[in-house]
Amino acid sequence: MDIDAAVFDVFGTMTDWRSSVASALADSGGQAGLHADWPAVTDTWRRRYRPALIKVVSGELPWMPLDDLHRLTLDEALAAHGLEAFGEADRDALVGAWHRLHAWPDAAAGLERLHGSHVITATLSNGGVGLLTRLTKRAGLRFDCILSAELVASYKPDPRVYRSAAELLGVEPRRLLMVACHPDDLEAAAGAGLRTAYIPRPLEWGPEADPVPAPADVDLTATDVIDLARILTGTD
Amino acid sequence: MDIDAAVFDVFGTMTDWRSSVASALADSGGQAGLHADWPAVTDTWRRRYRPALIKVVSGELPWMPLDDLHRLTLDEALAAHGLEAFGEADRDALVGAWHRLHAWPDAAAGLERLHGSHVITATLSNGGVGLLTRLTKRAGLRFDCILSAELVASYKPDPRVYRSAAELLGVEPRRLLMVACHPDDLEAAAGAGLRTAYIPRPLEWGPEADPVPAPADVDLTATDVIDLARILTGTD
Repeated sequence: MDIDAAVFDVFGTMTDWRSSVASALADSGGQAGLHADWPAVTDTWRRRYRPALIKVVSGELPWMPLDDLHRLTLDEALAAHGLEAFGEADRDALVGAWHRLHAWPDAAAGLERLHGSHVITATLSNGGVGLLTRLTKRAGLRFDCILSAELVASYKPDPRVYRSAAELLGVEPRRLLMVACHPDDLEAAAGAGLRTAYIPRPLEWGPEADPVPAPADVDLTATDVIDLARILTGTD
Repeated sequence: MDIDAAVFDVFGTMTDWRSSVASALADSGGQAGLHADWPAVTDTWRRRYRPALIKVVSGELPWMPLDDLHRLTLDEALAAHGLEAFGEADRDALVGAWHRLHAWPDAAAGLERLHGSHVITATLSNGGVGLLTRLTKRAGLRFDCILSAELVASYKPDPRVYRSAAELLGVEPRRLLMVACHPDDLEAAAGAGLRTAYIPRPLEWGPEADPVPAPADVDLTATDVIDLARILTGTD
């Protein structure tokens, strides 16, 4: 595939948000003497994410940094699980859990391979520039550039986000590959003229979650980031 | 010094633009059968740079990508040296020389040290995001983030550029260090509330250039990027 650059979704595609955030919730809740099914609270928090983004993209909510959106949706998730006892300072701190996500085991090695190739890599996430910089530094994910929906004050799946990546990197959209585990992200990228690569992450919602159907129409599918690097660089 | 992040000037501070660009001019001119003092042509090209930026910051010229500004000032520099014979395609290609600058010998090692520390590093250059991404990937300069004046459609020394770095990285300006070899860059950064580190680059304008006076008032001076990393991380 003739591409100049690949941009990557981060929450889910490169990182295991579920176990990272559940562990932060369990720590914080434990210190406050609270008990709950923390992975279930995490899932509720994450499920409030997409509707909140859609409200921003549609104009129903003003644009705000992802940390602020995470704070709003955390309040909803805690209320849904009867965890109103969480203090304000603890809630503020929990938003930072999304800055410290653990990478999937293949992600760092796959990125290193791509770093050594002609293919430019960048994040393309709804996380802010500061969040993504901290997360990737801490997790050892070597991207050549950090790009975020924040740079156009919107969120994926707004087509402006995908087009901004092509413009900022100085590549044609058809020579830019969007890499994600979420079919709707890939569909929106294709709608903006980008090429698409699907990496399934069957454990994104935990080992007992129902399997996510693969997207119908992508340019390539890779088993993980190392496999993607192999395909894009034509090497073993 | 208590800082969370350091942002770096690139042309001059981290890279030797003069020998890199002079070599590209010599190659291109040689192929066209032209003869000139290529380092002198390079110096003329570079001297047209700051006045062009100031025209953009003051509103006299509309904002345009740095590649376009470099193309305008290249035409002026070639005319000043009687090199009108350079073809259009060669001129377009020469603008790309600024995407392929060589790093100073200490730059990569100093950045690697900082990468392993708590200090976040980013570019803060008038080069565009695409230019900086290509340049740093090729030169082996590991920054945690790529920031550019392009993100606020302006150029240094516009204070908005320095403030945007603090905002995007999510750090207070007084905990953000601007690193540069140019006193005016540091002065503008200080005016925007940032801390400042000076790294002299006596070879920036070649071995025979007059010495550049050190800035009067900076927070720290380091001999090179390795020395800066040593100071910031408190280690040998």
